[in-house]
Amino acid sequence: MVDALVLDDAVETVRHLLAQERLDEAAAYIRGLHPADAAEVLARLTPEERLPIVRRLSPEELAHAFDRMDEDDMAAIAQQIGRERLVDVLERMEPDAAADLLGEMPATEQATLLAEMADADEVAPLLEYPPDTAGGIMNRVGPMLRRHMTVAEALEFLRQHYQDERELYYLYVLDRYGRLVGVVSLRGLILANPEQRVEEIMNPDVITVQANMDQEEVARLLSRYDFLALPVVDEENRLLGIVTVDDVLDVLEEEATEDIYRLAQVSEHSQVFSPIRQALANRLPWLVVNLFTAFLASGVVSLFEGTIARAAVLATFMPIVAGQGGNAGTQTMTIMVRSLALGELDVRDMWRALRYEIQVGLLNGLAVGTLVGLVAWAWKANPVLGAVIAVAMIGNMLAAAVAGVVVPLTLKVLRVDPALASSIFVTTVTDVCGFLFFLGLGSMLLL
Amino acid sequence: MVDALVLDDAVETVRHLLAQERLDEAAAYIRGLHPADAAEVLARLTPEERLPIVRRLSPEELAHAFDRMDEDDMAAIAQQIGRERLVDVLERMEPDAAADLLGEMPATEQATLLAEMADADEVAPLLEYPPDTAGGIMNRVGPMLRRHMTVAEALEFLRQHYQDERELYYLYVLDRYGRLVGVVSLRGLILANPEQRVEEIMNPDVITVQANMDQEEVARLLSRYDFLALPVVDEENRLLGIVTVDDVLDVLEEEATEDIYRLAQVSEHSQVFSPIRQALANRLPWLVVNLFTAFLASGVVSLFEGTIARAAVLATFMPIVAGQGGNAGTQTMTIMVRSLALGELDVRDMWRALRYEIQVGLLNGLAVGTLVGLVAWAWKANPVLGAVIAVAMIGNMLAAAVAGVVVPLTLKVLRVDPALASSIFVTTVTDVCGFLFFLGLGSMLLL
Repeated sequence: MVDALVLDDAVETVRHLLAQERLDEAAAYIRGLHPADAAEVLARLTPEERLPIVRRLSPEELAHAFDRMDEDDMAAIAQQIGRERLVDVLERMEPDAAADLLGEMPATEQATLLAEMADADEVAPLLEYPPDTAGGIMNRVGPMLRRHMTVAEALEFLRQHYQDERELYYLYVLDRYGRLVGVVSLRGLILANPEQRVEEIMNPDVITVQANMDQEEVARLLSRYDFLALPVVDEENRLLGIVTVDDVLDVLEEEATEDIYRLAQVSEHSQVFSPIRQALANRLPWLVVNLFTAFLASGVVSLFEGTIARAAVLATFMPIVAGQGGNAGTQTMTIMVRSLALGELDVRDMWRALRYEIQVGLLNGLAVGTLVGLVAWAWKANPVLGAVIAVAMIGNMLAAAVAGVVVPLTLKVLRVDPALASSIFVTTVTDVCGFLFFLGLGSMLLL
Repeated sequence: MVDALVLDDAVETVRHLLAQERLDEAAAYIRGLHPADAAEVLARLTPEERLPIVRRLSPEELAHAFDRMDEDDMAAIAQQIGRERLVDVLERMEPDAAADLLGEMPATEQATLLAEMADADEVAPLLEYPPDTAGGIMNRVGPMLRRHMTVAEALEFLRQHYQDERELYYLYVLDRYGRLVGVVSLRGLILANPEQRVEEIMNPDVITVQANMDQEEVARLLSRYDFLALPVVDEENRLLGIVTVDDVLDVLEEEATEDIYRLAQVSEHSQVFSPIRQALANRLPWLVVNLFTAFLASGVVSLFEGTIARAAVLATFMPIVAGQGGNAGTQTMTIMVRSLALGELDVRDMWRALRYEIQVGLLNGLAVGTLVGLVAWAWKANPVLGAVIAVAMIGNMLAAAVAGVVVPLTLKVLRVDPALASSIFVTTVTDVCGFLFFLGLGSMLLL
C-alpha cells in the first residue's frame, strides 16, 4: 500500500536538490513521481527553479504531467519549451488537454503548432468550442457498441478494440446512423446473459448535453445525477464526446475559486506567488474601480462637512453605520450569489427574496441599531445621538437587504456573473445610504 | 434521449398543483421524477408546501430521495415524518446516507431509531466516525476478490455475488487475513486473459486513506489522482469502506460553500429562504462580533474629534483611506485562504508570502495613494491634505498586506479555519491603522 505524497515535502526536496546544483537528481526525482504529483510539484516551482528540470524531462514525461495540470500552469511551462519540442509534447498529450493548452495561446501560434502536429485532427475539432463549454471540456469516446450486438460479441469487441490506458466509464450504443440510442455500464455487460442483445440490457433514457452548454451547468447535472460521465451530442443526436467526472471535479473547483476571488474583488486568475506584475494586473484595476465608488461616499460626507465641524462626534460613528450596513449587505448578497450558482435560486424568486430579506434586515437592524444606539448614548452621554444612530442603522440595514437581493439578481438577468460585480454595487449603496441617513438625520436633530 | 429536468420549472409545476389543492397529482408528479430530481424539488419547497406530498410518498420513495439529499434538507423533512415511518425510511436508505441523517439527530433520538431499525448493524459502524472524515463519508465496499483467483473465476464470482444497483468502481483484492493487497479495474478484468491470476493483473500500489482523514483532504487526493474511489483502511490495512467520486463532488461543493459563507461572515449553514429565526441565528452573531471591532475603529476616530472639528474635510476622506485598505487586505487574505484550502500554500511559506505581499502592497499603495492624493489636492485645493492622504494610504496598504498574510496563516497554525475569522481581524487592522495613520498625520500637518 502507498501513502499519498505530501506535496509540501516533495517541493522542499526538489528545492534542496536545486540549491545544491544536483539538477539531474532533481529531474530524476520528478520523473519518479506519479504524473499527477509531478504536475503539482512543477506548477509550484518558480519559473527559474523549474527550467533546468523541464529541460531534462522527455516529451513523454512532460506530456503526462501536462495532462494533469491546469491551463494557466501548462501555458507558463510551455513558454519555457522550444516550439519543436512543444510539438512533440502536444502530440503525446491527451487531445482534450492539448486543446486546453493550445486554447491558451495566441491564434497565430496555435495555428503554427497545429500545422506541425501529426495528430492535429484529433485536437482541432475540440478547439471549435469555447473552453468553458461541454464541447471545450469533453474527451474522446471509447469504443461504441451497436444495438444488435449480443453481450458476448460486445465483450469480445471490447477486448479487441480497447487497449487504451483510460478508464472506461459507460458504453454507448449507436444505431446504424451513428445516433446515440442507449447506454450500458460495464458492470451491466458483465452481469448480463452472454446471449442477450445489447439493446435488451441498455438504458434508452440517456441524459445528454449539447456541446455549447456552459461547463458549470454540465458539472451540476453530472453531480446531481451522480453520473461518471455525460455524453455530448450534436443536434442530430450524434455522439461528439463525453464529459467525465474527473473533469467535472476540476470544473467545480475552478468555478468555486472564480466565485471566491470575484466576490473578494480580485481577478479569478489570481495565484499565490504569480509574478508581481501579474499580481498588480489582477488586483489594482479592482481597487481603482472601488475608488470611484468610494468617492461617491466621500461626496456625500463632503456635503455635511459643516455639520461635522460643529458635531465632530458624528465622525466617530460613521465607520460603524456604514460598516455594519456593508457587512449585512455582503451577507445577503453572498447567499444570493451562491444560491444562484448552486441552482437553488432563480431570478423568478426576486420578489419572494426581497420580502424575505427585508424582514431579516429589519430585525437585524432593530437588534444592532438598538445596541449601538444605547452604547453611543452611554458613551457620549447624548440620547439624541443614540436615536440618530439607531434610526440610521435600521434604515441602512433595509438598504443593504434591498441592494443585496436586487444587485445580484439584476446582474444575473443581464447575463453578467453576479459574483463579478455585486460587491462593488452593494457596498456603494450601503456606504452612500449609511452616510446620507446618519449625517442627514444628525444635521437635522443634533445642531 | 432525455433532456435533464429544469428544476425551476418542476418546482413551479408542483406549486401550481398545490395551489389548486391537487395534492395527489403533486405527489404523483414527484413520484415520476428521477430520485435525484425528486430530492431537489422536495428540498426547495417550504415545509408547509412539502408536507402533503411527504405524507403521500411511500417509505421506499422517500428513501430514494433521501439518498440524494444533503443532511440539512433530510433532517428538515425527517422532522415531518412520524418515528415509525422514519424507521421504515431509514431501513430502505443507503447505509451511508442513513448514517448522515442519524448523525444530524440528538443522541437519544439516534439511539431510539437505531434500536428499532432491522439493519442497524450496517449503519451503526458508520456513526463511529465524525461526519466530516473519510470514515464518515465512506460507503460499503462491493464484492472483494482474492489474489489467487483466476480472471475467469473472478468474473464468475462477480456474476454470482453482485446484483446490487450501485456502480462498481474498482475491485479490491484481499489476502487471506483480509488485508488489502491490490486493486483491479473492471476494465482490466475484462481485457485480461481468463487464465491469468488476479494477483498478476492487479496494481499492488493502492493509495489508501485512514478513516480519520479530513473529508476535504480525501476529496483533494481523489481529485489529484483522478480516481473514481479511494479505499479507507484501518491500521492493519483491512478495508473498512470506500469513498466514491460522487461523494467527493458533494464534499467539494460543501467545502467551497462553507468557505464562501465564512469569508462573507455568515454561518456556513445559511440557505436562501431558511426560517427567519434561523437566518437571524446565522447572521446576527457575526454582525455583533463585527460591531465590537467596529467600536475599536470608532475609538480611534474619537481620539481625533478635536482635530476633525477644526478640519472636517478629514471626515470626507476617512471612508476612502479605510475602505481601500480593507479592500486590499481582503484581496490578499482571500488569495491566502483559498491557496491554503487548495493545498497550494503551506504555513512554511509565511516569510516568502509576507515579502511578496509587502511588495504588492507597496506598489498598490503608491498607485492608489498618489491617485487619491492628487484628486484630494484638486478637489479641496489643499496640497498638504493630498500628501497626508497619499502617505496614510501607502501605510495602510502595507498594514493590509501584513494582516492579509499573517492572520490566515496564524489561524491555520492554530488549527482554526482561516476562512472563519480572517475577515474580521483583517478589516479591524485596516480600519484602525487607516484612521490612525490618516487622522494622526492630519492632526500633525493640517492644524
